[in-house]
Amino acid sequence: MSLDIPKGFSANAVRAGIRGRNRLDLGLIVSDTPAVVAGVFTRNIVKAAPVVYDRDLVKSGRARAILVNSGIANACTGAAGMEQVRTCAAMAADVVGTDAAEVLVASTGVIGESLDISCFSNHMDELAAGLAPEGFDLVSRAMMTTDTVPKVSQRRILVNGCEVRVLGLAKGAGMIHPDMATMLAFIVTDAAIAPALLQQILRNKVDTSFNRITIDGDTSTNDTVLVLANGRAANPELRHGEKAAGFAAALGEVLEDLALMIVRDGEGATKMIHVRVNGAVDDLDAARAAMVVATSSLVKTAFFGADANWGRILAALGRSGARFDPEKVTISFGDVTLVENGTAVDGDAEARATRLLQVREIDLFIDLAAGAGAAVYHTSDLSLDYVKINADYRT
Amino acid sequence: MSLDIPKGFSANAVRAGIRGRNRLDLGLIVSDTPAVVAGVFTRNIVKAAPVVYDRDLVKSGRARAILVNSGIANACTGAAGMEQVRTCAAMAADVVGTDAAEVLVASTGVIGESLDISCFSNHMDELAAGLAPEGFDLVSRAMMTTDTVPKVSQRRILVNGCEVRVLGLAKGAGMIHPDMATMLAFIVTDAAIAPALLQQILRNKVDTSFNRITIDGDTSTNDTVLVLANGRAANPELRHGEKAAGFAAALGEVLEDLALMIVRDGEGATKMIHVRVNGAVDDLDAARAAMVVATSSLVKTAFFGADANWGRILAALGRSGARFDPEKVTISFGDVTLVENGTAVDGDAEARATRLLQVREIDLFIDLAAGAGAAVYHTSDLSLDYVKINADYRT
Repeated sequence: MSLDIPKGFSANAVRAGIRGRNRLDLGLIVSDTPAVVAGVFTRNIVKAAPVVYDRDLVKSGRARAILVNSGIANACTGAAGMEQVRTCAAMAADVVGTDAAEVLVASTGVIGESLDISCFSNHMDELAAGLAPEGFDLVSRAMMTTDTVPKVSQRRILVNGCEVRVLGLAKGAGMIHPDMATMLAFIVTDAAIAPALLQQILRNKVDTSFNRITIDGDTSTNDTVLVLANGRAANPELRHGEKAAGFAAALGEVLEDLALMIVRDGEGATKMIHVRVNGAVDDLDAARAAMVVATSSLVKTAFFGADANWGRILAALGRSGARFDPEKVTISFGDVTLVENGTAVDGDAEARATRLLQVREIDLFIDLAAGAGAAVYHTSDLSLDYVKINADYRT
Repeated sequence: MSLDIPKGFSANAVRAGIRGRNRLDLGLIVSDTPAVVAGVFTRNIVKAAPVVYDRDLVKSGRARAILVNSGIANACTGAAGMEQVRTCAAMAADVVGTDAAEVLVASTGVIGESLDISCFSNHMDELAAGLAPEGFDLVSRAMMTTDTVPKVSQRRILVNGCEVRVLGLAKGAGMIHPDMATMLAFIVTDAAIAPALLQQILRNKVDTSFNRITIDGDTSTNDTVLVLANGRAANPELRHGEKAAGFAAALGEVLEDLALMIVRDGEGATKMIHVRVNGAVDDLDAARAAMVVATSSLVKTAFFGADANWGRILAALGRSGARFDPEKVTISFGDVTLVENGTAVDGDAEARATRLLQVREIDLFIDLAAGAGAAVYHTSDLSLDYVKINADYRT
């Protein structure tokens, strides 16, 4: 994909040897001028040092750079870990020529190990020297851990006649679960927008993108989504919701693209399943039902085995807490209806559904016939490779 | 194990060919005289036909027999499934020489398929003809689905100088999760006991046994625990809590034995982990923390990989909802302390913990340092075989 870089941004990534590996693992994103910043972070009460640091910094509403490393998460590292975040931010500020209070820091990788600060100090000059608009591709690779592909999405829109670009990078393949700003995602845009409005749009759009995906029900200590908006598109500053609808839609699409890329690249995943619940008493019940189905180990192993095992889906619905009458439920895979009024449809529906499960992307439609509530969750299957990857991750 | 059968009970099991298989799959347990009955059932709102049927029958407080089949769960089978339960109960009542209202029915296996009633009618005479005290061993095998071993536990106690026997059978290896009377368990005893007291003791003891185990976080449509007490030990009838303490303890031990056997035989399990949380704000917080750790896919795959990955444990605690300060947590595997005050203990603790993870049974101690609350959950690891078993279960 040829990237359409928002004006005034550059990036670079290098091999810093974190955890002794020889791969891109340290990245830097810089705005030439101070940018408006918005962020959402993990709700896990165990927060990595960079999350605690960024959360404070984002409150100021302004930033110029994001320093990101993979390999070590700098989580559960105590006061020493927090001191290392400050040191790294100061080093990056130095090479960028800004104040440490304008440098955000993000880390992903193994929890509990300490960073070797020399990996950062030895490579900071090289990192800064290579800053260029084309560098975003390198950063998208430097963020990867168990990811198998880099994750990039972009949009270009017109705001009051001005061209505005939105470019997003994300990483994530395990420890992925709804109700979190899941894993790392960085979005840069040259839109001019007020800080409070950017934060509000980001929070809304995360709820319907990153907060609607699950891979394994586990949530991270490092989840971070950051947006930098430097205003270089020179549009009249967006200050109110209705005027910002076009920008909000573009940002939402980028976030949803990235969220779906994360599910598609889920650890060991062979399939992506869209769990679409309709007819719930309300949207909350629909979300609850969809989430429990999307996280059920038995449902996810059945999808891996291409087994149209609707009994497991109904059993998961039954423990979800959603209110419905089991004897009124309809379940369909794609256009094949398997269950009507809570019991199996006669004929060859299950055989047709099983054939349908050979593809990589599947729509699972559930109608609870209890109201007008609706929700969708996106999940992956639970495969042999998921277990292999996570039994061996650190060794 | 040589079984010590409570007086006045007999049992038998046969190969009925349910789902076309050639294995023990139909069992019958009979008390010579009417017995007091108590039962607890799944809280899943999708309930199999025999669960709905038994729940009503248990309210009468009396029963004489339990008919159990494996292969097909008779769940999500609508009105036809319920009619089949009544037919099966009537057939069993006929051969036993009792009323259909005194025959309980339990099924386990695939959800959504219909029973072939001829499997029952063709084998009912053979089933009754072979009834004998030694038959409990056969029934424990006929109940198995993905179980690899039958699960039996027994105790003998003195109640007012009378010998009282308690014998329990259980099945279960998948769709196992706390907050349920998990899967099938049948307990027979010759104790004389009032129905309300038996029900009360059963409910209490299930809470600290079956409701504290998890294999995959999924819960069944068929979970059933039944106790038949026929009074043939001729002890003075137990009517009050304090007099029944010895009996309650014995029943509790049998239930806990069976619950731990289920975890040990968890689908694909190579290890059993006892998650012991102390120092929580209260017992509820402790239970919440222990349950989230015990169900985390990332924690369970790490145990499979013999990886002392305490970061995943801390991350799971952090999303559990339990209230604690991450910087005060202590985590130990057996007698090896890995984490103190939320960060790694220096030295070779992790290497020693990794060696400790080679064994089949592991104590995981977590101290939240926030209060006096405590709880324990028992879980299995998440292995390659779990995925294989569940991707292939119906094929």
